Parts: sequence; structure tokens; C-alpha cells
Amino acid sequence: MATQKITKTRAADYQDWYLQVVAAADLAENSDVKGCMVIKPWGYALWENVQRVLDGMFKDTGHSNAYFPLFIPLSYFAKEATHVEGFAKEMAVVTHHRLEMRDGKLEPAGKLEEPLVVRPTSETIIGASFAKWVQSYRDLPLLINQWANVVRWEMRTRLFLRTTEFLWQEGHTAHATDTEAVEETMKMLGVYATFAEDYMAMPVIQGEKTAGERFPGAVSTYCIEAMMQDRKALQAGTSHFLGQNFAKASGIQFSNDKNEMQFAWTTSWGVSTRLVGGMIMTHADDLGMVCPPRLAPKHVVIIPVVRKPEDRDRVMAYCKQLAADLKAQRYDDAPIRVELDARDIGGGDKKWEWVRKGIPVRIEVGPRDIDGDVAMVARRDKEGDKAVSTPRAELIGSIVATLTDIQANLFARAKAHRTEHTKVIDTKEEFYAYFAEPPKKNANDPTPIHAGFAWAHFNGDPKLEAKIKDDLKVTVRCIPLEPGEPGTCPFTGEPSAKRVVWAKSY
Amino acid sequence: MATQKITKTRAADYQDWYLQVVAAADLAENSDVKGCMVIKPWGYALWENVQRVLDGMFKDTGHSNAYFPLFIPLSYFAKEATHVEGFAKEMAVVTHHRLEMRDGKLEPAGKLEEPLVVRPTSETIIGASFAKWVQSYRDLPLLINQWANVVRWEMRTRLFLRTTEFLWQEGHTAHATDTEAVEETMKMLGVYATFAEDYMAMPVIQGEKTAGERFPGAVSTYCIEAMMQDRKALQAGTSHFLGQNFAKASGIQFSNDKNEMQFAWTTSWGVSTRLVGGMIMTHADDLGMVCPPRLAPKHVVIIPVVRKPEDRDRVMAYCKQLAADLKAQRYDDAPIRVELDARDIGGGDKKWEWVRKGIPVRIEVGPRDIDGDVAMVARRDKEGDKAVSTPRAELIGSIVATLTDIQANLFARAKAHRTEHTKVIDTKEEFYAYFAEPPKKNANDPTPIHAGFAWAHFNGDPKLEAKIKDDLKVTVRCIPLEPGEPGTCPFTGEPSAKRVVWAKSY
Repeated sequence: MATQKITKTRAADYQDWYLQVVAAADLAENSDVKGCMVIKPWGYALWENVQRVLDGMFKDTGHSNAYFPLFIPLSYFAKEATHVEGFAKEMAVVTHHRLEMRDGKLEPAGKLEEPLVVRPTSETIIGASFAKWVQSYRDLPLLINQWANVVRWEMRTRLFLRTTEFLWQEGHTAHATDTEAVEETMKMLGVYATFAEDYMAMPVIQGEKTAGERFPGAVSTYCIEAMMQDRKALQAGTSHFLGQNFAKASGIQFSNDKNEMQFAWTTSWGVSTRLVGGMIMTHADDLGMVCPPRLAPKHVVIIPVVRKPEDRDRVMAYCKQLAADLKAQRYDDAPIRVELDARDIGGGDKKWEWVRKGIPVRIEVGPRDIDGDVAMVARRDKEGDKAVSTPRAELIGSIVATLTDIQANLFARAKAHRTEHTKVIDTKEEFYAYFAEPPKKNANDPTPIHAGFAWAHFNGDPKLEAKIKDDLKVTVRCIPLEPGEPGTCPFTGEPSAKRVVWAKSY
Repeated sequence: MATQKITKTRAADYQDWYLQVVAAADLAENSDVKGCMVIKPWGYALWENVQRVLDGMFKDTGHSNAYFPLFIPLSYFAKEATHVEGFAKEMAVVTHHRLEMRDGKLEPAGKLEEPLVVRPTSETIIGASFAKWVQSYRDLPLLINQWANVVRWEMRTRLFLRTTEFLWQEGHTAHATDTEAVEETMKMLGVYATFAEDYMAMPVIQGEKTAGERFPGAVSTYCIEAMMQDRKALQAGTSHFLGQNFAKASGIQFSNDKNEMQFAWTTSWGVSTRLVGGMIMTHADDLGMVCPPRLAPKHVVIIPVVRKPEDRDRVMAYCKQLAADLKAQRYDDAPIRVELDARDIGGGDKKWEWVRKGIPVRIEVGPRDIDGDVAMVARRDKEGDKAVSTPRAELIGSIVATLTDIQANLFARAKAHRTEHTKVIDTKEEFYAYFAEPPKKNANDPTPIHAGFAWAHFNGDPKLEAKIKDDLKVTVRCIPLEPGEPGTCPFTGEPSAKRVVWAKSY
């Protein structure tokens, strides 16, 4: 199952390049089940590292994990009108509970009295438990997280970015006051931003969504938005202040310290396997994946280069010792993750496989290197396929600094890219010119690279936003949290509280 | 959400006692979705520890995690005839992909061309991927594990032990030879046995299932069987040698080193959230849960006992320092997990909550204890509610030894229980007398405690096994792996290769 070479560059056909990277780095593949992906070991290991780090951050902020049913009774879902309306068009529905042979064909049998929805999100089913768990203000805040699979029947899917089934975490909390619930909403948005920047090396803008992009049933939705290499925005995580909407729908009530019954204030927040897609589109290059060291499944691969069988034992022994010496170094509070790739396949294929997988550091060792006590070392973030001869002691002594530097370099590179493709715009004409696409020559023409982010004033009118989306496929990605000055909406001449971020998006 | 007292003893009504422990220890609860449970934070933390340890053991034996679709096309499932027959009666079937309002009622809409089964197990969907991934003998062995939820539409469910949806791991491997696949099957059975005994403190018998209890589609099924406190057997993990059955159904073929196409030999193996039920039924007592230290969510709780407000600061400061000193100790290669329970609820309620949750060590500290630099310490495995005054330095110095001793004590106790209720039986009369149940006085009478395990010879005839099941509800739990002598089947007088283990089971 050798991985394939990537034949498209980002510049030539970004969409095709993305899918080729996913395949070439052995991250995931489509299954025969419409829109459902298979996450392969290298891709899943990235997700496991995302899980491990985020789970620690959630626990450090006082949350406990729990698990709630996959199936939601239809009647639960219908309790919050906006919520069911938002999801009704994309829900997998279980209607039967067994199979029967009829006329030589297996058919669904045992019809359920009430159909069950496969959870697209769990506010309603978790709300039913919270209603039982919360009685007094002493039971609050209730801070719960769930790692789970969810299903949204998407018509157009793309590996990691939008799939019918995906893996995610969903935090659900209940509070005694609106202030506390808003604080929680913002705190978890901050956790996501820290994770995205410090671990994924992906710069993000924190902000609030406009009404049109709000989670169905939420009072307000906050998000982190990142710029991909095609300059489109990726919504990488959301945090919702739900007010008392879901508490009322589910009956989450508590008696306060004056013994009065009140509805709780709730939040929910989530990130998903989409983050893996975000890492690919932020860091991968025309040779394949580039893993940020803090989340890389392995930090270092050692490839023994043996051309003559008689050299084999000597090279292997040297590589094993080198692996042990590297593993003895600690990066990010844990031993360095080293792979010694002794598989019996050609050295060139092997090298390219690791380049495509995006391992941060690749080391090749042959008999002549051993004679000089050196190794050939390649940093994936620099020239991806070129290796530099490095004395063994220097390699071991500098490996932690190298990984730290790669992590910092990836972040700096992504941030510079975003800066380069972000424009402050003050007139409608400039705005339309910025986002205008050159006409396609023919139907097979790849989608052209997008302009970038525009920071422009906006009067907040949903109809104006809809028109701009219609005209340019551009939407308000968020109203940034960072302080901004009031100004004038370039489309209407009306007042605007602050600039918002406009872009095309995934 | 204070937990409730347990009103039934194991002796009086074992089934009711079990459910009361699950509720009182705040481990799980039923949801409104038939047969689906909510795993509450304390129960889920036990499962997380199971996951963490097992995941490490799987990786140490060369396995990688991956993730495959929740949904299986009906046609995939039908490829292996025995397999589909074994599962057809208990499968949740997705038939629609959206909801529509019709006559003011939400109804399933968007009928699927091919119904999708919610995975009850993933041999067929993983087989479809393996068929793509395996081409040459160089791609083998392929060693994959998946952590996932599965659904089996059970008619009679019981929290953790048998639920419609449950969480599990399923290992799936492919090998070039039958020998290697059998080796893998046995290796993973061994991993399960080690985990059960060393971490869960639950002694198990490793053995092979008879044909009637085999996994649908397997060539042979191996299991670990444990004795619960009502002396019934719990099948706690299974490992299947699948021969080439699933490889043929899914087309997993490889070219061997002579360039001949061959079908691979596959295995699968799994354990589930049922293990949490096994821990409860092995260790819990009439006061509630008893957590084995190596898997306990927390090892130690410190309860500050403050009756006068003016003592509060002094007691809290002492407790915080004690918590820090205990956390500085390492048990099982990690810092001791300490909970300082400063909640504003009555000391008695608080104490009993932790007794019911089964935390291994409970520490209470009041002003008078501080004056003497001592703490009240209670080991949950000994007298559950009684605490002993212990000098602080001694407590800190001995905490690791105490946890180690509790773990060993729980295992020894469970093993002694099994020994006490295991009988070697050589005649049919004695066998029937051993397993005979006293008649119930009335319909509300609790199920009587079961006799135990019988080691008896058996000629291997499935019809005889079926008759004994019919007569006594007793089945062959396994044909033990450990060496045994040939003998005579007490039911038929025919030769028997070795004694097998008979018992009633969950």
C-alpha cells in the first residue's frame, strides 16, 4: 500500500491537491458509505493527539467526560423549534430494529414506534439528563464534555472538512446565571484559540457569528476562523451561548438560594476531525503533509540505508542506538516519538513516504555516515526532500530545539501568509474588485485561488450580507473580539460599530 | 443530585443490589431511548482508565488505531452468511436521511436506496478497507484497532452488562498464514487476561468457546470468563480466529513471495463497557462500589470537616498541603489522583457519597486532627465506613503501599471467592444437584444465588450441551486453555479430552 506521488500543486488545482495530500500522506479515504470516511492510522494518530491535548485542557478547566446515547427520539429533537428546523434536512433516521429475509432479500423489519435520529449534536439528549441531574444551585455549574461520533447527512462532502459522520467533542454546561454561562462560552473559545495557535500552529481570529451563521437554537455563536493556503476561511471551532432556550426545552430547572425555581443558562462548544483538514490546508506543501511537531504522530523517522547485506547488522545497531538516544530526549513533556523504519522496501520509496506523511524530522543513516559518526538530517518544514550531514552528538543535542523551531516556523509562516492576504477595505468598489473571480476558461478549469480576508465595516443588516454572499460567495466570517473603531459601512454609508472579517469559506 | 443509599444486600436480591450500586455510585443511568444508557462522569472515568491502559497494551503489541464508518451497507453485511444470520435480529437500520413536516408531524423522509445498518461489529466494513490496503505479503501483518460505539438491539438490557448501544474496542488483524493469525488471537486473549487480573483485579479463566457460543462467522472463539459475586460467569472479552471466512467475503487477497494470490487469515477481538459491570459485580459490596486502585478515577478523597466557620481557613490550608503531599507520591507510574472535596454539603452525606462511589482511600481532617497532626483514614476494601486515626507522615509515607495492598487484596478476595464456589464434578447426579435452584416461593422472590462453576468432563456434543442448558440454564463457559487430563463424560459415559467449565452466565 505504497502511497502515491502528488501530481497537482496548490497553485494549479488546490482542491485536487488537497485530496491528493490526504491520499499520499495516508490520512484517510472515502468509504462505500456515502460521505463517510475511513480515518487511516496516520490520520487517526493526529486526531488522537488532538484529543489528548484538548482533553487535558478541558479537565484543567474543570470539565468531566461522560457519554450519552447515539440515538435521539424524534420528539426530543422537536422540542426546540429553531434547532429541529436547522437540522431536519440532514438527519439519519433509524426506523427498524432488525432484518428479515423476504423473497430471498434482506429487508428492514421490526418497525419502531417512534423513529430515532442519529445524533447530529446532543443538546436535546444531554438536556434530558441535565434536567434530572440539576435540582439545586449547589448542582451548578455542571461542566460536561463528550467525545463522540455524530452524523449530518451532507450532500457535498470532502475528507475531514465535511463528512456525513465525523468525530468530535461537544462540551455542554449549565450555569446559575447568564453571566457565568457567557464567561464559560468565552473561556472555551479561548481554549480553542490557544490550542489552534500553540499546538496546530494555525493562527486564528476569535469572533462572534452574525445571526445567519448562528447555531440553530443559540442566542449567540462564537468561533475561531483560520486562513487556509487558498486564502479561504475555515471555521475551526465554535462556542455557543444558548441562553435559557435549551433549558426551557428540556426542563433544566434549579432552586436558587432563595428557594425559587429558575431555568439554567447553558452553553455548548465543539471541535471535530475537521481540525485535521485545517492542519493539512495550513501546513502541507506540494510534496505532501507537514505535521506540526506538537501533534505529529511521530517526531522523527530513522531510515537505515543498507545497499550491501553485509552492512545490515552494523547499520541497524547504529540506528537502534540513535533511536534510543533520541527517545531519551524530552519534547513537550514527553519522550520524543521516534520511528525506526526497518521495513524491507526500497530506500527511495521509503524516504518519499515519510516526506508525504509530513514527519517533522527525517534521518538517514548508511555505512559511510557511521564511519564519520554523522547522519543525514532533513527538516520537513524547510526543503522537504533535502538532507544535511550532521554529527550524531549535535543531532541528539539539538533535536528538541529543532522541533521547537519547526513548530514556531510553521506558525510564523502561516501568520505571514494571513497577513499578506488580509486587506483593510473602505469602499464597495474595492471590496467587489478584491473578491471578483477571473472567469473560468472552461468547466474543467480549477477554482482560482481566492483573494483573502477583508476587514471592512458593516451595518449588520442580514439582507445586505445575503446579497454580498449572492454576488461574491463571500460572508462575514466573524465580528472579531479584538477592539475596533466605529466607522461607516462602505455598502450603505450607515454607521458600523467595528470592522468585521469577510471571506469565502469552507 | 445526592446519591442514594443502597437498600438491598447482595444476599437478599443480587439483581436489585446491582442496579442500586450503579445508581448510588453515580456510574450510569437509563435514558429514554430503549436500552441505551447514559454513562455518568464517575462511570465514564473508570472506562477512560480502561481505555488508557488497554490502548497502551495494544500499541505495545504493535497495533495502530484507525476509524471506520458507523454505517454498514446491507449488502456488505450479507456477504458472510453465518455472520448476517447471527446479527440480523438485533440491528438498528437507517432507512431515511431527513425529516419532513407532514400534517403538522415530523416524519422520516428522503428514503435511502440501500438501507444502512448501524454497526453491531465491524468485520465487514473494515474488511472492505483491508481489501484495498493489502496487496502484497509485505503489507502483512496488518494490525488495527478501533475504539467505537456499536449497537445491538437487545430485548432485555441491564446497565453496562447488556445495552443496545455500548462502547468498545475492536481489534482487526490480517496475516499471511493461519499460524500467525492463531498466534495473534491467543496473544490478544492473553492481553485481556493480564488486563483483567492485573488492573481490574478480576481473576479470569482463559478458554475456547464451544461451537454454539462461537462468534457468527468465526472458525474459533476464545474468551476470558470471570466469576461474579452471585457466582454466575461473565464473559469479559473475546478473541476470534476468523480463518479465511471474512477475507473471502471481503476479498482480502495478497500476493505471496512466490507471486501467488492468497486470501489473508484474519482475527478480531474486543472488550466493552461491560468490563465496568464486571468490576462492579466483582468488587462492590453492600455499601456500594469498590474501585480497584489501578483503574479508580481518583485514588484518595480528602474531606475537610469544618463545624465552626472560624476553623475553615485552617482546615482547608492543612488539607491543601496534605493533597499536595499525596499528589507528589507516584503510584502505577503516575502521580496519585487526589480529590479535595470542599463542597458545601453536610459531612455525613459527603462521606457516604465517597463510600458509595468506592474511592479506595478516604481521608477526613478536622481541627482536632490538625492539632495532633493526624488524619482519619479509611480503606474502602476493609470496613467501608470506619476510619482510623493515622499520623500525617505515616499516611503520606504509606499511601503507595496502601493502594498496592488494596489492589492485591481485591484480587485475592475475588480469587478466594471463585475457589470457594468452584467444584470438580464427576457424576450427572451431582452436577444436576449442584445447579438445581430452590423453587421460588412466589413470583416476586429474588433469583437465588447461583451455585458456582463446575469443572466436569464433556463429550463435546452440542445436543447434550443444549439439553443441559434447557434443564438447568447452565452452559459450557469455556474449554480451558490450561492443561487437563482426559476422562469420561458424566452425562454419556463417552470419552472426554479434558474438563470444561460449566456455569450460569450473564
